[in-house]
Amino acid sequence: MKKYFKVDAWNIVEDNFMEEKNKISESIFSIGNGYMGQRGNFEEDYSGLTLKGTYMAGIYYPDRTRVGWWKNGYPKYFAKVLNSTNWIGIKVNVNGKCFDISRCKIESFKRVLNMREGYLYRQVIATFKDGERIKLETKRFVSIVSKEIGAIKYSITPLNFSGEISFFPYLDGDVRNADANYGEKFWSEVSKGIRKNEAHLLIKTKKLDFYLCSCMKYYIVSESKKHKLRYKEASKEKFVGSKIKLWLKEEEEVSLFKYVSNVTSRDFKIEELINKGKEILDSAVKKGFDSLLYEQAKAWINKWEKSDIVIEDDLEAQQAIRYNIFQLNQTYTGEDSRLNIGPKGFTGEKYGGGTYWDTEAYCLPFYLATQGKEVARNLLLYRYNQLEKAKENAKKIGLKKGALYPMVTMNGEECHNEWEITFEEIHRNGAIAYAIYNYVNYTGDKEYLKRYGIEVLVELSRFWEERVNFSCDKNKYVILGVTGPNEYENNVNNNWYTNRIAAWTLEYTIEILEEFKSYSALKVKEKEVNKWKHIVENMYYPIDKNLGIFLQQDGYLDKEQLTVKDIPKEELPINQKWSWDRILRSCFIKQADVLQGLYFFQHLYDIDTIRRNFEFYEPKTVHESSLSPCIHSILACKLKKIDKAYELYLRTARLDLDNYNNDTNDGCHITSMAGTWMAVVQGFGGFYIRKDLIFLDPIVPDNWRGFSFNVMFREKLIKVKVDKNFIEVKNEGENAINIIIKGKTYNLEGGKTVIHK
Amino acid sequence: MKKYFKVDAWNIVEDNFMEEKNKISESIFSIGNGYMGQRGNFEEDYSGLTLKGTYMAGIYYPDRTRVGWWKNGYPKYFAKVLNSTNWIGIKVNVNGKCFDISRCKIESFKRVLNMREGYLYRQVIATFKDGERIKLETKRFVSIVSKEIGAIKYSITPLNFSGEISFFPYLDGDVRNADANYGEKFWSEVSKGIRKNEAHLLIKTKKLDFYLCSCMKYYIVSESKKHKLRYKEASKEKFVGSKIKLWLKEEEEVSLFKYVSNVTSRDFKIEELINKGKEILDSAVKKGFDSLLYEQAKAWINKWEKSDIVIEDDLEAQQAIRYNIFQLNQTYTGEDSRLNIGPKGFTGEKYGGGTYWDTEAYCLPFYLATQGKEVARNLLLYRYNQLEKAKENAKKIGLKKGALYPMVTMNGEECHNEWEITFEEIHRNGAIAYAIYNYVNYTGDKEYLKRYGIEVLVELSRFWEERVNFSCDKNKYVILGVTGPNEYENNVNNNWYTNRIAAWTLEYTIEILEEFKSYSALKVKEKEVNKWKHIVENMYYPIDKNLGIFLQQDGYLDKEQLTVKDIPKEELPINQKWSWDRILRSCFIKQADVLQGLYFFQHLYDIDTIRRNFEFYEPKTVHESSLSPCIHSILACKLKKIDKAYELYLRTARLDLDNYNNDTNDGCHITSMAGTWMAVVQGFGGFYIRKDLIFLDPIVPDNWRGFSFNVMFREKLIKVKVDKNFIEVKNEGENAINIIIKGKTYNLEGGKTVIHK
Repeated sequence: MKKYFKVDAWNIVEDNFMEEKNKISESIFSIGNGYMGQRGNFEEDYSGLTLKGTYMAGIYYPDRTRVGWWKNGYPKYFAKVLNSTNWIGIKVNVNGKCFDISRCKIESFKRVLNMREGYLYRQVIATFKDGERIKLETKRFVSIVSKEIGAIKYSITPLNFSGEISFFPYLDGDVRNADANYGEKFWSEVSKGIRKNEAHLLIKTKKLDFYLCSCMKYYIVSESKKHKLRYKEASKEKFVGSKIKLWLKEEEEVSLFKYVSNVTSRDFKIEELINKGKEILDSAVKKGFDSLLYEQAKAWINKWEKSDIVIEDDLEAQQAIRYNIFQLNQTYTGEDSRLNIGPKGFTGEKYGGGTYWDTEAYCLPFYLATQGKEVARNLLLYRYNQLEKAKENAKKIGLKKGALYPMVTMNGEECHNEWEITFEEIHRNGAIAYAIYNYVNYTGDKEYLKRYGIEVLVELSRFWEERVNFSCDKNKYVILGVTGPNEYENNVNNNWYTNRIAAWTLEYTIEILEEFKSYSALKVKEKEVNKWKHIVENMYYPIDKNLGIFLQQDGYLDKEQLTVKDIPKEELPINQKWSWDRILRSCFIKQADVLQGLYFFQHLYDIDTIRRNFEFYEPKTVHESSLSPCIHSILACKLKKIDKAYELYLRTARLDLDNYNNDTNDGCHITSMAGTWMAVVQGFGGFYIRKDLIFLDPIVPDNWRGFSFNVMFREKLIKVKVDKNFIEVKNEGENAINIIIKGKTYNLEGGKTVIHK
Repeated sequence: MKKYFKVDAWNIVEDNFMEEKNKISESIFSIGNGYMGQRGNFEEDYSGLTLKGTYMAGIYYPDRTRVGWWKNGYPKYFAKVLNSTNWIGIKVNVNGKCFDISRCKIESFKRVLNMREGYLYRQVIATFKDGERIKLETKRFVSIVSKEIGAIKYSITPLNFSGEISFFPYLDGDVRNADANYGEKFWSEVSKGIRKNEAHLLIKTKKLDFYLCSCMKYYIVSESKKHKLRYKEASKEKFVGSKIKLWLKEEEEVSLFKYVSNVTSRDFKIEELINKGKEILDSAVKKGFDSLLYEQAKAWINKWEKSDIVIEDDLEAQQAIRYNIFQLNQTYTGEDSRLNIGPKGFTGEKYGGGTYWDTEAYCLPFYLATQGKEVARNLLLYRYNQLEKAKENAKKIGLKKGALYPMVTMNGEECHNEWEITFEEIHRNGAIAYAIYNYVNYTGDKEYLKRYGIEVLVELSRFWEERVNFSCDKNKYVILGVTGPNEYENNVNNNWYTNRIAAWTLEYTIEILEEFKSYSALKVKEKEVNKWKHIVENMYYPIDKNLGIFLQQDGYLDKEQLTVKDIPKEELPINQKWSWDRILRSCFIKQADVLQGLYFFQHLYDIDTIRRNFEFYEPKTVHESSLSPCIHSILACKLKKIDKAYELYLRTARLDLDNYNNDTNDGCHITSMAGTWMAVVQGFGGFYIRKDLIFLDPIVPDNWRGFSFNVMFREKLIKVKVDKNFIEVKNEGENAINIIIKGKTYNLEGGKTVIHK
């Protein structure tokens, strides 16, 4: 019963309205353009279950921290993405009665997200209690061509009566966040105006002074074209709109075109906002709805050119991967280095919309491989620009030097307030170093490394230098009191993954420093580098020689050694069924931890080491983070465990479409969608880059045919098609590349294709 | 500047009013009688710094949990001791102007807590802005003879004028808790009445339906005796009072006697409350203020007979130990087994007023040794009566059997909501077993053990049986994921103290079961006992052979090994200056942990083992819990480190009087006061009981003379006097006791005295 969307290669289709599922559907049907976005809310009033959400990227509120027991070092606030002006709203009355789907009898209902062309469509046939039967048809999109523009075509046809229909399009800034620590409202009004079919609303946040100006204009078009329009303006605190009444004949369709621009003080001077908003709006109105939608479709089709993945003969997998790619492209376009990728994108408020290590560990490869250098570079610059804040953050936890990037952030300041996460999940610093390495491998952009990257690496290394300590007992460097990627363990000593990525960061920094001979410019002392070398050479790694595995942390083998199969089904997921304490004591793992390290550093370990660790840890992993199955799926592919890989892939690919974790109503798992992309391309595609070499070692499920994907490498598109009998690789660039397909090396010239049989 | 009370053997004296210190003084001058109590607030209006607090033992409010990030297993509420009806209030007007000390010029001020007789005295000479100079004199007490009764004598003399004085005594139930998670008020009105000089107010808590009825009556007495009294009644929501005006001649003293009874639905039927309250009040009024106060003084002097400690020639130490004994006797009288000892007693709201392991580990010895069997037994019964709730609590954290007593509780349900404490600080179960052992040693009361104690021990043992797990790696039983008494480490493995007290509990339970041969009555299976034996024999204890010490937990020696001397002074206390993460990673210890175990089990370890551990751990201990120095002081005495012992003793003895931790304004550290008593009697007195033997090995600071104390043993008073040249022990009982004084054994007959030279 969980699956209720129709399976289709290019569309998400809901063709039966289920009130109790509406919040899930609202998440799924979210639209966005990297600059703004919104949940798939209805335009007209709706009294059923709904989570209203309209979001502007980069506009947030510092919501005062809520805490049970304060610990020194906690931040004063948690930055929250803001539910902002509801600009889609259109109240509709039919013969004086409010049109509200939840109060009508619904004869047919269809909601379609057209992913290929980037718009949301709805068609409803509804009957009022008093018998009026109407047809509703809507199209809505936020433009990826003019990012400030949203447009709606909202059409109504009275099917069995002639009567009065009134429309009341409005802008409503009097909105709340569902997630507000103290129930406050976050916006206050600055100014507003309404005249006939035109309105604007300028509001600002109560803290930090973000200004948002929304401008709207609307038009009525009907068959008869002879309606005399009389606008009745209305306004109240943070709200403007105007009402018009029409007398429609039976079967006469009327369409309302609502155009809106949203401009903010992030891009314009405050005093210019209203004029800029009107200007941008006017030029959109001038183009008209159909042209705007045509532009939109063209731009989306262009995006698909680079990022599409084709999986023939497995329609569910095809739809899922396209949905994931679509959402990723809706969430982040890489035009603005002040922005990042919140865990829910524009689909909900959960987790505050801040930046997590998900960006570097999971999302970056997708953007690197499908959007290329400029987009990915902006993700890196985001962290570079926050380096000073990260240095302050290291000081706040009591270190004298180095940078600690926050666990959750908007502007570089830490937001999260659980000591075991905020202070201890410091491996996040490692992922930021790894992202730089990843970026250089994909793009070859050493210029970035020289100008920005190396500075970040040095500060990360300084952090690790101070955060390790020398254990006289072990005669090694240790890292005490950390939480690894597996958050089902807290405050452990010598988490293998953390120790490994710390040492690797030091190694990589030293390598780059030596390559660039840039010690002095960065004020790196030789003494420092020597200390780093000493740490690298003397880092302690917990291992078990008998089992031939790396130990997740000191003492892991003291736990009762069980596998997930030993947990009764009714006790899953354990994070809902078990006390926290029982989870901590158990051997069960939330998400890849040792295996996350083996995924990152697969080039440094032989296949048997990877196998032994995979076979030990995967059966103990409950995959209760949406970021878990993808990493395991990739490693399973590498180990040629195709059934396991496919099973794990399915858990992540349709996570939201099938509401696998029962939480899609809060929003979609955007960053996890990038993990799905990785599972397809790096897992089944066996795609891997090491310095300037491309490795391809595809292994595809039996039910897949016509599997193809694209990847960017050194700014050129490589097109890969995998078949049972051959692998075809096309180098769309000009220069030759070295590619190793299933262990065989090819020097593939630009514009050419090789076929591996 | 911190010390501002006069040093005096029997009184706490403040003789200079400092507004900024008033909240500290209010804590210090708190009075109570085990049933009710209150901070040393003024009767008249006061607009300066104040924390109003009147508390009824056992009346609490389940305040909805406030939390940053919810973890499964957290309780829904935190029970809070309730600020309840302010019954001391008397508004005073002089020539129509409100008398408020903070708005007058204070010529002289004296506040005295008479500990010997149990009352609070105040004398003030104040001048109004307009020049009226008045003298105020008050006496107030809560009766330890009639626990429901409080009485106030409130006298005013106009010194330089004749004029109008009005009094407005009232009962005010419209009060707030300073500590309320969501700012709610907790009381609602049921009924009230006021007629002339008599009033009653019946209120109930908004949850749990505790009813509190306060009745008052007041009288005016003056020299002239001819005042015509006209009462002007007043009432509003949760408030009643009446006003009278008097015309006083210059130098004519007038006294208002206010008598109050407070009765609750904990003791009486709701419908009887008003009548019972009036009845009890009437019988107090009949006695009159002077008789009531005489009774009070007599009863307190009786209490001192049993519990006094004399330290001649060290007046600060003398005052301190008496203050501590006084507060302990005010807080808990042992008449009601539903009551316990909150960390702040009746002196403040902090920590919610619930029961902590402080009771068993620190308070019980005081009550055992000074109040004897019945009082101590009620402390044990408190836990026995909550055994079913403790079993539920074990289930909540996912265990199938056994009992886990809560970290903080009112009625047996857990209140605390920090996972590292709530779920992990399970050593508290050990202290509850140890308390039973302690009780039996002091009292010889095996009947209690048979009827109640053994049942608790069995459930505690079942808890440990399930909570340990067998480590195949170590081939031993381990206890993972705990927090020891040192809360500056969380989620550690194999905390030595926890492992030790767990195994000891199993051993003691087995011993008692075998003594009583009561397996079957308690449905204890032989299989269970065999499992317990197996655990006892195969428990893992972390040790370091080179250092010859027990390790606080696995991996403790991986930390950078420093001592408190290495911390710059300005960084102390670390819990205010360091981030939580830095504290966790450091080797610094909040309070006795391994040493707490060596204190409990000193009979099981040789003196060199105790010395090695003391010398290793004490220098790493920051003593940032008020419960820490006392245990260290006792062990230092045992190791004949008298200077260290005295230094540590001073940190605890005058903790509140000298506001050592800058937090006395919140209330006094009541449970820590019992620790001070232990430091004196068990430390310097060297008093120790093992089964039916008394050990005495006093070692006293050079500046002490005439040091004597009393202890109850097997229901008889033993009087000990320690001098430089001899130790005198008097057995006031009838039967002989075996006593070992400084290693020499005496069989001391009843009624006899021995002198050891």
